[in-house]
Amino acid sequence: MSGLRDDQRRFIDQFACLLAPWGMPMSSGRVNAYLLLNAAPVSVNRIAADLKMSKVSAWKAARSLAEFGHVRRYGEPGSKRALYGPSEDFASPFRKQSSLLGALGTCFQESAATIGSPETSVLLQEMAKFYFSLQQAMERGVGEASQKPIV
Amino acid sequence: MSGLRDDQRRFIDQFACLLAPWGMPMSSGRVNAYLLLNAAPVSVNRIAADLKMSKVSAWKAARSLAEFGHVRRYGEPGSKRALYGPSEDFASPFRKQSSLLGALGTCFQESAATIGSPETSVLLQEMAKFYFSLQQAMERGVGEASQKPIV
Repeated sequence: MSGLRDDQRRFIDQFACLLAPWGMPMSSGRVNAYLLLNAAPVSVNRIAADLKMSKVSAWKAARSLAEFGHVRRYGEPGSKRALYGPSEDFASPFRKQSSLLGALGTCFQESAATIGSPETSVLLQEMAKFYFSLQQAMERGVGEASQKPIV
Repeated sequence: MSGLRDDQRRFIDQFACLLAPWGMPMSSGRVNAYLLLNAAPVSVNRIAADLKMSKVSAWKAARSLAEFGHVRRYGEPGSKRALYGPSEDFASPFRKQSSLLGALGTCFQESAATIGSPETSVLLQEMAKFYFSLQQAMERGVGEASQKPIV
């Protein structure tokens, strides 16, 4: 793909705007959406040119997206010739999130008894239970969603 | 609470470090954890003093946390005398996340047919189904987790 059509730009902006309130920088959101539009992996230079952003911004965005499993990196580790493409395993960030819920639950549980007032203790115990329960639901949900056949 | 004990500082740092890879700024993570330790709502000045951060940083962090439902704001809208405390409704950010999954699913679904190559179309359709399915699982999970009695 060379250059972007209007509808593609709208898709990229819409995606980035939806993710921005969640803490994903707009540049990362735009790179993420852009990569979804490319069947074949593309270079950082190409990303930067098509999205009219600096190469450094494009590289940082692509690297952090790949770290989190949002996109896939092709090429030798450390190589500057890395290519990036969409990840087929789009459940990956959600599996990571479900691990995080467990880690937070453990953090709350371990601190609940000693860290503060009795009210704090009750709140942290409630939060720990909530996070563990949500972790289980999310793991089940990711498993089920991944198995849905494509009609 | 005036000043923080070592175990409280560790809790605050641990919480902030767990959330940082998810895009939550360390300052927001620290304010969030700090507020969990206080049964009574506290002022921005107090947050800033206990966490040794600037008032502007503390205010920005507290405001964005409250917008997202992570913490609760007390006081008149726009007032500089706002107090912040933990939210009892800790399911709120997850309900927002489940709405986001639906919005992303719709974004993928609406664009799938026209936005790119046939491969892109298949990928976006798969992603739309995955996001809708995960949205349902998450809504169910949040509902179930919220109803768990505290033992």
